[in-house]
Amino acid sequence: MPIVHVYVWLGFSNEAKKKVISGITKVFMELGIPKEAVEVVIHEVPKENWGVGGEQASEKIKNVSLP
Amino acid sequence: MPIVHVYVWLGFSNEAKKKVISGITKVFMELGIPKEAVEVVIHEVPKENWGVGGEQASEKIKNVSLP
Amino acid sequence: MPIVHVYVWLGFSNEAKKKVISGITKVFMELGIPKEAVEVVIHEVPKENWGVGGEQASEKIKNVSLP
Amino acid sequence: MPIVHVYVWLGFSNEAKKKVISGITKVFMELGIPKEAVEVVIHEVPKENWGVGGEQASEKIKNVSLP
Amino acid sequence: MPIVHVYVWLGFSNEAKKKVISGITKVFMELGIPKEAVEVVIHEVPKENWGVGGEQASEKIKNVSLP
Amino acid sequence: MPIVHVYVWLGFSNEAKKKVISGITKVFMELGIPKEAVEVVIHEVPKENWGVGGEQASEKIKNVSLP
Repeated sequence: MPIVHVYVWLGFSNEAKKKVISGITKVFMELGIPKEAVEVVIHEVPKENWGVGGEQASEKIKNVSLP
Repeated sequence: MPIVHVYVWLGFSNEAKKKVISGITKVFMELGIPKEAVEVVIHEVPKENWGVGGEQASEKIKNVSLP
Repeated sequence: MPIVHVYVWLGFSNEAKKKVISGITKVFMELGIPKEAVEVVIHEVPKENWGVGGEQASEKIKNVSLP
Repeated sequence: MPIVHVYVWLGFSNEAKKKVISGITKVFMELGIPKEAVEVVIHEVPKENWGVGGEQASEKIKNVSLP
Repeated sequence: MPIVHVYVWLGFSNEAKKKVISGITKVFMELGIPKEAVEVVIHEVPKENWGVGGEQASEKIKNVSLP
Repeated sequence: MPIVHVYVWLGFSNEAKKKVISGITKVFMELGIPKEAVEVVIHEVPKENWGVGGEQASEKIKNVSLP
């Protein structure tokens, strides 16, 4: 405890994944939870599988660079 | 709000994904929710990773065409 | 197949839940999927457990009526 | 994007929930993602519904105080 | 690893929850995974929030007793 | 009912997937639930997307063989 499932668009760099994992873990450590108890799972989703406002993000949100 | 996670077998066409996203978004718009508030995430799962009745769908459910 | 998990704020009426379930099921029926194959699970989440823009929805988004 | 689902034991204080939401949102802001794009959903699970090492957390992990 | 999320109708007995947790954990132990690595989270969902075939399970599937 | 989502590291053999599916299904059959009602979905996650104790499992847990 806790388990954290993170859903992002496909294409985060390895460096960004590390920061997501370490950053979220620190949020719980600051609440007094031991770091070994924190599991963070990153799920990468292609933009054509992600809908916002009824449209695929691949159509609607172009020219976005991912971290 | 809402967030909708859709789990389907791997292989939906891009056209089918668009219809899933726009169709589900409309369901909430008809309830008075603004379309920009609806996020739909489609997760494609290989049939050998999907079990029904104790067996892999890849073994049990053959000859199914996906939309 | 498919399995659909819907996350909404706590407080949808029974009528709205029915419409979410029947509406989402129809989206897949229109793609040729038999209606008995569609499972829709609605998860109601209190607004203080839902964060948008770094704040609880209970603080940030007041005066919203749910369907 | 991103959507973050956090699963914790039932009983986090409102203050702790605020810190989870703001802290996780900041992790993504530091990666250049606008804060309005971050949704964090906290799911509270009773300890008897959470299994670790084959046992209910309610049996196995007593005398733990939550933040 | 692994993390297992189980979604059932609201109303499982404590005894049934124990069996779900210990039984699923054993499945992974038999694959050589240490039992301490297995986390099982049971999510209880009211039948009116669970749709099958376009209808609420509370309407469609009556007279079912849960374990 | 039930729906079971299993998250494991990428690389389980087909044989191991079969055992996960059949084994988890049996757990519910022993509770009196018909096997056709059980859906098990296995999600394979690359180790660099899985954080434990603030680090990627790909960095922290090497030399592990998967079933």
